[in-house]
Amino acid sequence: MTDLARVEPATLDQLNDLVELVMELFRIEADFKPDRAKQEQGLRLILEQPSRGRIFMVRTDHKIIGMVNLLFTISTAEGGFVILMEDVIIHPDHRGHGYGSILLEHVLEFARKKGFLRITLLTDAISAESQRFFHRFGFERSHMIPMRLNLPTDAAS
Amino acid sequence: MTDLARVEPATLDQLNDLVELVMELFRIEADFKPDRAKQEQGLRLILEQPSRGRIFMVRTDHKIIGMVNLLFTISTAEGGFVILMEDVIIHPDHRGHGYGSILLEHVLEFARKKGFLRITLLTDAISAESQRFFHRFGFERSHMIPMRLNLPTDAAS
Repeated sequence: MTDLARVEPATLDQLNDLVELVMELFRIEADFKPDRAKQEQGLRLILEQPSRGRIFMVRTDHKIIGMVNLLFTISTAEGGFVILMEDVIIHPDHRGHGYGSILLEHVLEFARKKGFLRITLLTDAISAESQRFFHRFGFERSHMIPMRLNLPTDAAS
Repeated sequence: MTDLARVEPATLDQLNDLVELVMELFRIEADFKPDRAKQEQGLRLILEQPSRGRIFMVRTDHKIIGMVNLLFTISTAEGGFVILMEDVIIHPDHRGHGYGSILLEHVLEFARKKGFLRITLLTDAISAESQRFFHRFGFERSHMIPMRLNLPTDAAS
C-alpha cells in the first residue's frame, strides 16, 4: 500500500484536513484539548509564513493520511537554525502501514538538506510506543523538563 | 542593591558578555556543553533577526548581571504566537539578590503586552530550585518528554 503514498508540503488548500488531524491528536494528548478555531489559526499562520516553518503531509491521490509540523528557530547551544517538530500525526484509520516512517524519513532528509542542526520534539510521556518510534530514527530522550505558562488571551493583540 | 538594576533589550554591543553567560550555563547543564563559536553564532543570529526572538539583559551601569533569550514561534494548540524561553542566566557572583525575578517579571510583561499566548521553557531535571523559581511565576510542569536528534554539521549550509 505504502508505495502509492507520497510526502508533499501542505498549502492553505489542505487547511481543513490539517485542522481535523491536529484536533484528533489533541483529543488523545493529556496536555492539550482540541479547539477548531485555535488549530485553524495556528496552522494558517505557519502556512502563510514559510520562514517560520513548514507543514508536510503524507498523502495518496485521494486522501491526506498524516502530517507533521516543523517550526524553525535558533539554538544558542548548536549555533544555528534548529527545528521543533510538532503535530506528528497519522490518521487512526491508516496506522501500522509505515506511513509515519515515510513522513519521518522525509523530515530528516529535509532537515539535513537545509542545514538544520537539531530536531527537538515533545512527545507524550505516556506513549512508550511513540518514544520507541522516534528512537528508531535516532531521537534520544533529553534530561530537560518542559514547564509552561499560559497567558490570558484577552491581552492578545 | 536591586533598585539600581534595570532590564534592557540586548544588542550586538553586548555579544561578548552574552556569550560568556551562556557558556557558564552550559557548563552546569547535563544536556549541553559550552562552545564559544556556537554560542556566539546562535546569539548573533537572534540579535540580528528581531522577528525570531529577543534577548533581554538585567544590568547596572557597570555590568551585565544576567540574561534571558526569548524565541518566537507558532503554536497550533494555542492558535497564535508563543515564546520559547531559553538561557535564563544570572551570573554566579550575583545570585540571591532578586535579579532573576526582575528579569522574569519583565519577560511576563513583554509577553502579555505583545499578545504571546504561552511561554515554554526546558529546565534541567536535576535542579529542583530552578523548578520552584519558575513555579512561583505560574509555570507548570508539562507531561511531555523532550526528545532530540542532533544532525551532522557537515551538511550545514
